[in-house]
Amino acid sequence: MLPDALRKVIMLLARLPGVGEKTAQRFALEMLSDKSLATALAPALLALVDEVAPCSDCNHFASARVTPPSLCSICLDPRRDPTLLCIVARIQDLLAIERSGAMRGRYFVLGRLLSPLDGIGPDQLPIEQLLGLVGRAAVREVILATPPSVDGEATALFLSRELTARSIRVSRIASGVPHGGDLEFADQITLGRAIEGRRTF
Amino acid sequence: MLPDALRKVIMLLARLPGVGEKTAQRFALEMLSDKSLATALAPALLALVDEVAPCSDCNHFASARVTPPSLCSICLDPRRDPTLLCIVARIQDLLAIERSGAMRGRYFVLGRLLSPLDGIGPDQLPIEQLLGLVGRAAVREVILATPPSVDGEATALFLSRELTARSIRVSRIASGVPHGGDLEFADQITLGRAIEGRRTF
Repeated sequence: MLPDALRKVIMLLARLPGVGEKTAQRFALEMLSDKSLATALAPALLALVDEVAPCSDCNHFASARVTPPSLCSICLDPRRDPTLLCIVARIQDLLAIERSGAMRGRYFVLGRLLSPLDGIGPDQLPIEQLLGLVGRAAVREVILATPPSVDGEATALFLSRELTARSIRVSRIASGVPHGGDLEFADQITLGRAIEGRRTF
Repeated sequence: MLPDALRKVIMLLARLPGVGEKTAQRFALEMLSDKSLATALAPALLALVDEVAPCSDCNHFASARVTPPSLCSICLDPRRDPTLLCIVARIQDLLAIERSGAMRGRYFVLGRLLSPLDGIGPDQLPIEQLLGLVGRAAVREVILATPPSVDGEATALFLSRELTARSIRVSRIASGVPHGGDLEFADQITLGRAIEGRRTF
């Protein structure tokens, strides 16, 4: 009942995370009523694929147009402390920490977490790349900022062993009741961690 | 902190309805990890703009590649009763009614509703196009399927006057408690309409 060109766009948009067929249809209809969006988005998507590549140091996104092409803006920033390294699971987590403004060092993006259920073991983690960076940048302290989930904790534990064996100081981000959070509605594990990780005034 | 190409895609995706900057970023990161999606979507968007045009009869989407290029698949379907016309506000509403399978006639998409607050008066509605179609197709019955909102009711009332003055039978879709709906949680207006519009067994 819909033109082929429209059905194809709906089918492709439905592949985006959290987008079902109804939302994809809504997006496609919007593109038809605002054609400037569709005509601007098409070349922008091709440029995205062409011009963005993972940073060879940390796996964050780097622009392939900047020289040297293989490093991201954070690894290129001379004001960043190269001896302090924050390890995160995903680029989204890196961006969230950057928004907080609390990290003055560099990052390393794992891209995945240890997950025995999904068959992801230590071999699938970019350990060699990480140790290479740690050696090259003379990293002295590593902050493990993997999420406080089962997989995130397992990955943090594994990495802490690898790194402390190389005499690097390793810390883990704090876990507890979030800012503005209500103790009444916090789950048991979060409250347990909040008590366990208490700090003296 | 993000490459320009990535920021541009995020900015454009944030123009989609219901998509904020965080969701747009999530979509853009998905396009980077699934580059086949970005490379397929770019030409599909250009084809969408090129190949889809409003049906000259009803304003539904028509494929510009089909002959005659100006009519949609519903207006071209000879099994549809051309003397029964269902007037809807948006193409999404047409698609929803089509999914119900309850409409055997054709449609007319208004594209907007009367809305004094937004300065949309009777002059902004495609009345001439509607009356032209009604005359050409010898329409005998019109079903007003604008939404049961203030603007939708006002538009239905206005159209019913225009059409009954031309001796066309006009009806309005029923409004009441939806299928599977709970009377306890239905609002007063809906319950009022459900009682008012009651039908004898």
